[in-house]
Amino acid sequence: MAVNIMAINAGSSSLKFQLLAMPEGQVIARGVVERIGMADAIFQLTSSNQNISETQPVADHREAVTLLLDKLLALAILPGLQAIQGVGHRVAHGGECFSDSVLITDEIMDQIEQLSPLAPLHNPHNAMVIRLFRQLLPGVPMVAVFDTAFHHGLEESAYIYPIPWHYYSEMGIRRYGFHGTSHNYVSHTLAQSLGVPLSALRVISCHLGNGCSLCAIKHGHSINTSMGFTPQAGVMMGTRSGDIDPSILPWLAVNAGKTPEELNTMLNSESGLLGVSGVSHDYRDVEQAAQAGNPRAALALQLFAERVRATLGSYLVQMGGLDALIFTGGIGEHAVAARSAICAGLQFIGLEIDEEKNRHGAPFIQSDHSLVKVAIVNTNEELMIARDVMRITHPEYQASQVEAAS
Amino acid sequence: MAVNIMAINAGSSSLKFQLLAMPEGQVIARGVVERIGMADAIFQLTSSNQNISETQPVADHREAVTLLLDKLLALAILPGLQAIQGVGHRVAHGGECFSDSVLITDEIMDQIEQLSPLAPLHNPHNAMVIRLFRQLLPGVPMVAVFDTAFHHGLEESAYIYPIPWHYYSEMGIRRYGFHGTSHNYVSHTLAQSLGVPLSALRVISCHLGNGCSLCAIKHGHSINTSMGFTPQAGVMMGTRSGDIDPSILPWLAVNAGKTPEELNTMLNSESGLLGVSGVSHDYRDVEQAAQAGNPRAALALQLFAERVRATLGSYLVQMGGLDALIFTGGIGEHAVAARSAICAGLQFIGLEIDEEKNRHGAPFIQSDHSLVKVAIVNTNEELMIARDVMRITHPEYQASQVEAAS
Repeated sequence: MAVNIMAINAGSSSLKFQLLAMPEGQVIARGVVERIGMADAIFQLTSSNQNISETQPVADHREAVTLLLDKLLALAILPGLQAIQGVGHRVAHGGECFSDSVLITDEIMDQIEQLSPLAPLHNPHNAMVIRLFRQLLPGVPMVAVFDTAFHHGLEESAYIYPIPWHYYSEMGIRRYGFHGTSHNYVSHTLAQSLGVPLSALRVISCHLGNGCSLCAIKHGHSINTSMGFTPQAGVMMGTRSGDIDPSILPWLAVNAGKTPEELNTMLNSESGLLGVSGVSHDYRDVEQAAQAGNPRAALALQLFAERVRATLGSYLVQMGGLDALIFTGGIGEHAVAARSAICAGLQFIGLEIDEEKNRHGAPFIQSDHSLVKVAIVNTNEELMIARDVMRITHPEYQASQVEAAS
Repeated sequence: MAVNIMAINAGSSSLKFQLLAMPEGQVIARGVVERIGMADAIFQLTSSNQNISETQPVADHREAVTLLLDKLLALAILPGLQAIQGVGHRVAHGGECFSDSVLITDEIMDQIEQLSPLAPLHNPHNAMVIRLFRQLLPGVPMVAVFDTAFHHGLEESAYIYPIPWHYYSEMGIRRYGFHGTSHNYVSHTLAQSLGVPLSALRVISCHLGNGCSLCAIKHGHSINTSMGFTPQAGVMMGTRSGDIDPSILPWLAVNAGKTPEELNTMLNSESGLLGVSGVSHDYRDVEQAAQAGNPRAALALQLFAERVRATLGSYLVQMGGLDALIFTGGIGEHAVAARSAICAGLQFIGLEIDEEKNRHGAPFIQSDHSLVKVAIVNTNEELMIARDVMRITHPEYQASQVEAAS
C-alpha cells in the first residue's frame, strides 16, 4: 500500500509542496502558495485531474499552511489529514551538525534555529514553517532534509578557506555547499541509467538553474562543490556573481561608499547574467537578446559558460579524470547552447557531445566515441526528500527505496 | 659595446636595483635599500668583487636614490652617472592604457599617477621614484615596465567580472593580472630551452613566491591569469587568501563589525599560509612545522597545492590541453614537495614528473614518457626590464635581443 508523503520547500514569501505516493514516487498533487503576505497571493495546485490557480489574501505563512491543508481536503485530494503519513522539509543549512536527513524533534528544531546566522534568509523561514506543520499535523513524523548534508564529507582541504583560522574555529566560516539534494539525486539517477554502481564513477554534476552549482562526486561522495559559505559563491548565476576578486568589496566600500548591505545586494541580486547583460536574469531572455545582436548579452552567455568550464577543469584535476558529466536544473536541462559551449574543446579528456542528440535533449548526449558520458537528468528534489522521509520514518520500505535510488 | 641599463623596483619602504650590461644581460651590480624612512635603513650591494651591507639613516626615497647613485660612483662601479644609458622602472599597474612597456614622458607620468586608485599601495611610490631618477639623471631615457601589460590582450570573457556592468565601465573594475614581466620572461626562456617557438606552445606558468599567480599562455599570449583586479585574488599565498566566497566579507562586516580596512588587512596580511598554519607566511617554515607534526601546517601546504591545482585545471580546459608547465618564484624554484603535490595524479593529461629530477631541481623534471614538459625556470624580472629598455631606447640592438629572448 502506498504511503503519502508531503515534500515542503518554504521560502520567505512562498511555500512549494508536493504530495507523493511512496515508495513508487507517483505525484498525487503539486503546487505552490506564492506572494505570501500580500492581498493578491496565489494558490496553485496541479493533480491528475485538476489544475487550479486562485488569487486571495494570504497574510502569513500560518495562513499559507492552513490554506494548503484545507485545499487538499476541499479538493478531495486527501480523505483526511491523517492520510498524510510523513512530511519532509527542505532546510537550507545544516551547518556542521547534520550529515544526513534527520527525524525532527524539539532538539532538532533548536539546532536548526541556532544555525540561522549562517543562513539568515532561509533557516528562520524553514523553522517557522516546520513548527506550523508540527502544530497542524500533530503526530505525523517529519524529516528535515538539508541542502548542505550531501557535502558533509568534504575533506578539510576542500572546505577550509585560506583566512585566519579563528574565523573557522570560532565563527564556522567554511565551505558548506548547497544543492546537495539535487546533486545526490541526479548522480544516483545517472548511475541507475548507466547500470553502473555510483561507487565506480567519477561524476561532475552541473546544477544550472536560478542558482547554479557544480559538484565533484567521486565514488558517490561529494568531494567538492562550487557554492561555499553562502550560495553566492562559485559559478556565475542569474543574479549572483559567483566568485570574484574578494578585494573588490572593501575597495567599493572605501572608494564608492558601499555599505555591507549594498554589497550583499549587488553580489546576490544585481550581478550574474543580469549584471553583465543588463537585460534579464533569465538565461532565455539573455539568449534572445544575444541572438538579436546585443553584445553584452552575448558576453554574459560566454562568461556563464567559461565560469562553469573553469570549475569543471578544477574538479577534473581533483578527481584525476572524469567518467560522466551531468546537466540538470532549468538551464542545464533546457539550454542547448549552454551545454554545447560548456563541452566545447574537451576532446583532450575524451569528452565530446553529439550536437544532434544535444538539440533533442536526449538523456545521453555524448558522441558515439566519447569516453566520458554526458547526461541530461531532470532533477527532482521533492522525490529525493520523500525518499529520505521514507528511509527514516518507514524503514521497512528501505530495501525497495535503495533499489529505486541506486 | 655593452650598454649599461639600470632596472629599478621601488616599494613603499624599499628600492631594489640591478645594473646590467646589455644586451648580454651580465649583472654589473645588484642590491637594495631597505627600511627607507628608518634610522637603521640598510644598503646592500653585490658586484663581481664587492659584497657590501651598511646600516645608516635613510629619511625618504629621495635619500635612497641619492645614496644608490653616490655609492655606484664611490665604489667605482660606474666611472660617472653618464655611464647609465637607460633606466627601466617596474610599475605595478598599467590599467587599460598600457599594453607594453613605454618610454617615460611627462604625459606618461601623469597617466601612471592617474592609475593610483587602482594600485594605491604601489603606483604612487613607483611614480615618485621615477620622478627622482628623472631629476637626478636628466637626459637618460627611462622606460616604465608594467606588471599588468603582459595580460593586456585578455579577452573580455577573461577580464569582465559578473557584477553590474557600470563597475567596469565607470570604475575600471576588471581583471588586470600582475606578475606579467615574470610570466613573460619564463615562458620565453622555456621556449628557448625547448628549442620550440613559443607560438607553438600552450603553457601554464606558476609564479609561486611571496605573491603567487598562474598564467595561461597560449601561443605566446596571456589568455588568463589568477590575480585579478588586485594582487590579492587567485591562488593562496604567503599572507594573502586568494579567492574566497566573496559574501564572507559583508558577512564579517555585519556579524563581526569588521571595517573595510580590517577586511583588507585580513585578506592581504593575515591569511594564506600564515592564516591557516598559524606558524609563518614562509613556505619553508610551514614545511618544517608540518614535518614536526603540526596538523594545521600540513593542511596549509595541502590547501596551497589544491588551490594551484584548481587553477591549473581551469586553464587546462580553457586551452584544451597543455604542452608545458613552468614553476618559478621562490617556492616554485625551490619547494620540491610543492611541485610534487601540484603535479600528483595528472597522468590523465599525460603529465608526470620524475621525482629524482624533481629533487635535484633539474631544468626539466617530467618523466621520460610524460607528454607534458615540466620546467623549473629561475625568473629574472630585472633582465626582462632591461631587455624592454633596450628594445625601446636602443632599437638597434633589437634583432639580437629578439634572438636571445625567443
